[in-house]
Amino acid sequence: MNFLLSLAVMLIAARIFGEVFERVSLPSILGYIVSGIVFGSVLNLIPIDHITNFGQIGLILLLFIVGFKEIDTEKLVKNKKPGILTGFLGAAVTFVLAYWLGLSFEFSFLTSLFLGLAIAETSISCSIASFINLGKMNTRLGRSILGASVVDDILGLVALAILTSFAVTGAMGIFELGQIIFGIFLFFIVFIAGGYAIPLLMKRVKTFRSEEIRFSIVLTVVILVAYLAGMVGLSVVLGAFLAGVMLSRSPELETREFSNDMAVVSHGIFIPLFFAWIGLQIMIIPEMIGIFSLLLILIAIFGKMFGACIAGLISRFNKTECLGLGIGMIPRGEVGLVVLAIGKGLGLIPDLIFSAVFLVIAVTVIITPILLALVLKNKEIPG
Amino acid sequence: MNFLLSLAVMLIAARIFGEVFERVSLPSILGYIVSGIVFGSVLNLIPIDHITNFGQIGLILLLFIVGFKEIDTEKLVKNKKPGILTGFLGAAVTFVLAYWLGLSFEFSFLTSLFLGLAIAETSISCSIASFINLGKMNTRLGRSILGASVVDDILGLVALAILTSFAVTGAMGIFELGQIIFGIFLFFIVFIAGGYAIPLLMKRVKTFRSEEIRFSIVLTVVILVAYLAGMVGLSVVLGAFLAGVMLSRSPELETREFSNDMAVVSHGIFIPLFFAWIGLQIMIIPEMIGIFSLLLILIAIFGKMFGACIAGLISRFNKTECLGLGIGMIPRGEVGLVVLAIGKGLGLIPDLIFSAVFLVIAVTVIITPILLALVLKNKEIPG
Repeated sequence: MNFLLSLAVMLIAARIFGEVFERVSLPSILGYIVSGIVFGSVLNLIPIDHITNFGQIGLILLLFIVGFKEIDTEKLVKNKKPGILTGFLGAAVTFVLAYWLGLSFEFSFLTSLFLGLAIAETSISCSIASFINLGKMNTRLGRSILGASVVDDILGLVALAILTSFAVTGAMGIFELGQIIFGIFLFFIVFIAGGYAIPLLMKRVKTFRSEEIRFSIVLTVVILVAYLAGMVGLSVVLGAFLAGVMLSRSPELETREFSNDMAVVSHGIFIPLFFAWIGLQIMIIPEMIGIFSLLLILIAIFGKMFGACIAGLISRFNKTECLGLGIGMIPRGEVGLVVLAIGKGLGLIPDLIFSAVFLVIAVTVIITPILLALVLKNKEIPG
Repeated sequence: MNFLLSLAVMLIAARIFGEVFERVSLPSILGYIVSGIVFGSVLNLIPIDHITNFGQIGLILLLFIVGFKEIDTEKLVKNKKPGILTGFLGAAVTFVLAYWLGLSFEFSFLTSLFLGLAIAETSISCSIASFINLGKMNTRLGRSILGASVVDDILGLVALAILTSFAVTGAMGIFELGQIIFGIFLFFIVFIAGGYAIPLLMKRVKTFRSEEIRFSIVLTVVILVAYLAGMVGLSVVLGAFLAGVMLSRSPELETREFSNDMAVVSHGIFIPLFFAWIGLQIMIIPEMIGIFSLLLILIAIFGKMFGACIAGLISRFNKTECLGLGIGMIPRGEVGLVVLAIGKGLGLIPDLIFSAVFLVIAVTVIITPILLALVLKNKEIPG
């Protein structure tokens, strides 16, 4: 199909599925995802690469909005402990369990380590969209999920660097690790400098003659910061979020008009396409299903929930919050596949592991919005 | 470069060039085009195919807006004579002159016919954007330009069909021609049916739960109608315009909010990228320049101007309007290249002709915004 046609069909299909799902009290983002599954692996009508670019922009805009207006950053920084704990414990528990599963199935030491790493990292976008939909993003629970994902992201990056250089050279790569830490350091310098520069830039923009240029500039800044984050090895998602935080300090952007502009562009075009794109990537073939992948799914779900619940209890969260924290950390995404791809490049990852992790992604992405809606809808969450 | 990075860089570059051009009293769309030239053939930084999809959407949105809010369609239909005359005479004069030039340079009869056809068709987008910028779109001049481009489009399509089947079979292809006329007929049936169906659809949309769905639906309808037009051989541009006309009848869309949404999405993202994309395609190499291409440029410019001026005089337009009509019809675009590509498939088009037509496109696209601004700025044009 022609690109334009794919885009139009996918967009309207996603919106219709979203609307139908909402009417039967299911989360609309699940509708978007299912539309992608239906038009992708079921009907085989829409080629993924027609939607990829728009989907990536949708992901970036989603996290930008969280940083820009959903989250109270001061509260996030001030009360960061629950997030850090959740990120750390959730990743650690899952890593250990998946590693152990790998060894039990007689995979090698290194292969099992890669498996653990691939399963340990949460991919936050599904949870974030659900929290926004439920109006629970700017609660201590929502902020903790976000903080946890940042920790998770950095942990994963460092662990991957160590593991890769260990697999290649048989030793911890101090140099590679130094490089990464330097990259992260550099990125945060840019972030802080940007925090000062952006408001000045926005003041100048007011004097520009062409309209809508403000919007173009914001979009560019967001993409550039996200790209930069990706370049130093952090996730694009974290970059987009921080770009949102950076830009939230410009009084020029604190207008209802700008919020509306952003909402139209993101929710009207890109975000539904992002979730449809996730759906397009989901493909379940019979070979994926077996005792190994079923155990891996259980570990992926309950490992995170167990780690997060402990973190929640330590932080004196109530029962609903603990559950929400656990479920919020369940979804996995392409990060896991990236880890596996690196491992495969080293000849360490058999196909069985690839398809099992793929199944984990599919299952977790589909169940998370449903579980979050079940647990959090109409519940009072402390701000 | 990564797709996201290309997009961000191209968008911001286009806006900055546009702003600078506007400040020195040059048309901003010329700035967009020049930004594409600079980042494309000069610096070789942005791969065209990273921008193509966004550019195509920009083109569609540009013409959608014209149909949706810029043009008073009743007036366009009621006073259609100047447009039809301009379209017909401009195309005829240029076709004959370019055909004659081909023969004089000892190209074959068929090759010269293809050359004539490639040069005869106007590509209206540059003029339209300039007219909108100058606030002159909904004048009898602006409407005539638009009407002329529709005539030009249909004429070109029919002529191409006849010429191609003649070149292949040595006879007029009644069947192919019938097919095309049937396709056009079908398209207009869909257009009329859509005109009734869309307002009903929009009424339903009001009852939908998700926000921004209105915008998604409009975008989808526009793309689908444009695609359909392209499928029957009409230009995507005409389809997008007619989609705008179709949708302009829904009272639900006649809000300031919706206009603003459209403006942000189109002028904030896609339209600047469309013109930058045109610029990216422009590449001038020394071999292009020679007596043949210079003569072809003169024919392309003055053929259209001569034809349009006669049409203007017959329609009792004043001097400024006649000039505006002539200049408005100058820009050429990818339609010419499509014609040549078909001819090349038949082994009829030597490289010299290809590069000359390419130069014509580059020159006409660059001069049109400048000339239109010179002639029309601060002039009173009859509505």
